[in-house]
Amino acid sequence: MESNSVSPMPEQNAQAPIAEFDKTPPTPPEDTLPLEDLPPPPTTVTVQEEKEKEAQAEAHRHYEDDNEWSCGSWLEYTLVVVLASILLLGSLGLTLFWVIEYRGGFAWREDPKRQFNLHPVLMVAGFITFSGFSVLLYRICRCCRRIYVKLLHTVFHALAIPCVALGFLAVLDSHNLAQPPIPNFYSLHSWIGLTAMGLFAIQFVVGFFSFLVLLCCEGATAGFRASLVPIHASFGLTTFVLAIAAAVSGLTEKALFTLGSHYQHFNEEGLVINTIGVSLIALAIVVGYILQRDDFRYRAHILIRSGDL
Amino acid sequence: MESNSVSPMPEQNAQAPIAEFDKTPPTPPEDTLPLEDLPPPPTTVTVQEEKEKEAQAEAHRHYEDDNEWSCGSWLEYTLVVVLASILLLGSLGLTLFWVIEYRGGFAWREDPKRQFNLHPVLMVAGFITFSGFSVLLYRICRCCRRIYVKLLHTVFHALAIPCVALGFLAVLDSHNLAQPPIPNFYSLHSWIGLTAMGLFAIQFVVGFFSFLVLLCCEGATAGFRASLVPIHASFGLTTFVLAIAAAVSGLTEKALFTLGSHYQHFNEEGLVINTIGVSLIALAIVVGYILQRDDFRYRAHILIRSGDL
Repeated sequence: MESNSVSPMPEQNAQAPIAEFDKTPPTPPEDTLPLEDLPPPPTTVTVQEEKEKEAQAEAHRHYEDDNEWSCGSWLEYTLVVVLASILLLGSLGLTLFWVIEYRGGFAWREDPKRQFNLHPVLMVAGFITFSGFSVLLYRICRCCRRIYVKLLHTVFHALAIPCVALGFLAVLDSHNLAQPPIPNFYSLHSWIGLTAMGLFAIQFVVGFFSFLVLLCCEGATAGFRASLVPIHASFGLTTFVLAIAAAVSGLTEKALFTLGSHYQHFNEEGLVINTIGVSLIALAIVVGYILQRDDFRYRAHILIRSGDL
Repeated sequence: MESNSVSPMPEQNAQAPIAEFDKTPPTPPEDTLPLEDLPPPPTTVTVQEEKEKEAQAEAHRHYEDDNEWSCGSWLEYTLVVVLASILLLGSLGLTLFWVIEYRGGFAWREDPKRQFNLHPVLMVAGFITFSGFSVLLYRICRCCRRIYVKLLHTVFHALAIPCVALGFLAVLDSHNLAQPPIPNFYSLHSWIGLTAMGLFAIQFVVGFFSFLVLLCCEGATAGFRASLVPIHASFGLTTFVLAIAAAVSGLTEKALFTLGSHYQHFNEEGLVINTIGVSLIALAIVVGYILQRDDFRYRAHILIRSGDL
C-alpha cells in the first residue's frame, strides 16, 4: 500500500498479489478502513502521535480509492462485466445462428459436412463461453466465499471439457468420413488449436490437483499454492487468447473454403462470419482488460485489511 | 511495498504504478536500499528508535526482492528479453525468406502479384518488429535517462509508420491493378487490420502530443500525463495483439489462396507460413508476459527510492 501512497496513478495494478492468495477468508471485519487508518498498538505516546499524523495524511491521499469504489469505478466495473457477458453469450449465439441458418444445422456421422458444424459451436461454447465465464467468476462473485468460487470455476471448466472433446471429434470425423478424406493438422488453425487444447488440459489437471486436492493439507501447501496462482492465471489468459486466435484463423478458413469468391462480394454469410470474429477479438480485449485491473479482483480490500494472510 | 511484505508472492505486480510515471528522474542516488532502510528525519528519539526497529524487520523480510534482483530474476529477464528479440527479428526474417524464396520477391506497380509480397513483409516490419522493439525499449533500456527512452520509443514508432503505410498501399494496389480487380475490405483479416491501423494512428498522435509536446509545461501536465500512461500502455498492447491476430488470419488467407489443396498435403511453403504464424503467436505471449511483469519495468526501484515523484 505504501507504493500506492507515492503513486499518482490510482487503482491500476495496486494490491495485486494478495488478492489471488488462495485461502478462504474468515468473515470480513465490519471495518473496511485501510490498514494505515487503524490506530497502531500503543507503544509510546510519541510514536502513536507520529503514526496518527501519518495515518491522517495517508487517509487524505487515499480518500476514495482505498475505502470504497467511487461511482465511476462501479460504473466502469458494471459496464465491462456486462459487456463481457454479452460478448460471451453473443458470440456463441451468433455461431449457432450461423451454422443453423446458413450451414444446414447439425448431424453426427451420417453427414460429415453437417457434423463439421458442431466443431465451431462446441469449440466456442467450451473454449470461449464456459472458459470465459469461469475466469470472470473471480471478478463477478466478489462477495461469495472463496471456496465456492473455486468450485464453480472448476465446474465451468469441467463443462468445457466435453464441449472441446466433442468439438475435436466432430472435425476429425468430418475430415476422415469425407469423400475423399481431408487431411488433419496441416493448417495454422489446427496448430494453434492443438496448442490451446494441450494448455487447457495441463491447466485443468494442474489446477485441480493444486487448488482443490492439495487443500487436504491446507497449511503445508499454502505457499506452494500461492506461488502457483499467478502462473495459473497467466497460462489461463494465454489459453483463452490462443483459443481466440484459433477461432479467427478457423473462421477465415471456413469462409474461404465454403464461400469462395462470394466472400469477396460482401456475401451475407461472410458478414456474419466476420462479425463472429470481431466479437471474439473484442472479447479478448475486454477479458484481458478486466483481468489486468487489479482492483476488480476478488475481495482485494478485505483480504488485505483483515490481515488473514 | 507494504503489500509485498504480507504477500507470499514475491515480485509479481509489486511496485506497479510508479514505474511508468512519466518523468525524467534525476541522477539516481548511490544508495539503492529501500526507503524503509533510510534513517528517518530526526523528530524524537522514541520515534526514531521505533522506526529503526521496523526498518530492520522490514529489511529482513525483503532481503532479496527489494534491494536487487536475485540470480534467478536476472536469468529470467535475460531469457525472455533475448527470446522476444529473436522472435521479433526471426518473424521478419522468416517472412522475407518466404516471399523471396517462394513468392518471387518484390515489384511495384508493374506486377500486382509481386507487389502484394511487400504487404506481409512491411506489415510485419512495422506492426511487429519496430513496434515490438519500441515497446520493449521500456524494459530493455533500464539504465538510460527516461527522456532518451521516450525519444527512441517515438523514433521506432515513427519508423513503423512508412512501413505500415506502404504495406497498406501495396495490398490496395495489388487488388486494384489485378485483372479482374479484387475487392477490398471484405474479409475478417482486413477488418482486424484496419482496426489495428486506426488504433496505431490514434496512439501515435495522442502519445506524441501528450508525452512529448506537453513536456513544454512539464509541471502543469504531470498529473494528466501520468494518468494517461496506463491507458496508452494498454492500448499499445491491444494494437500489438490485434496486429498479430490480423497476421494470423492474413497468413491463413494467403495459404489457402495461393497453395490451395497443396496446403493440405504438408507442402513446404505451407509449413513456412505456419511457422511464421506460430512465431507471431509466441511473440504475443512473450511480449504480454514481459509487459505484465512489473519488476521488469524501467527503474522501478530507483524511482521509488529517490522519492522524486
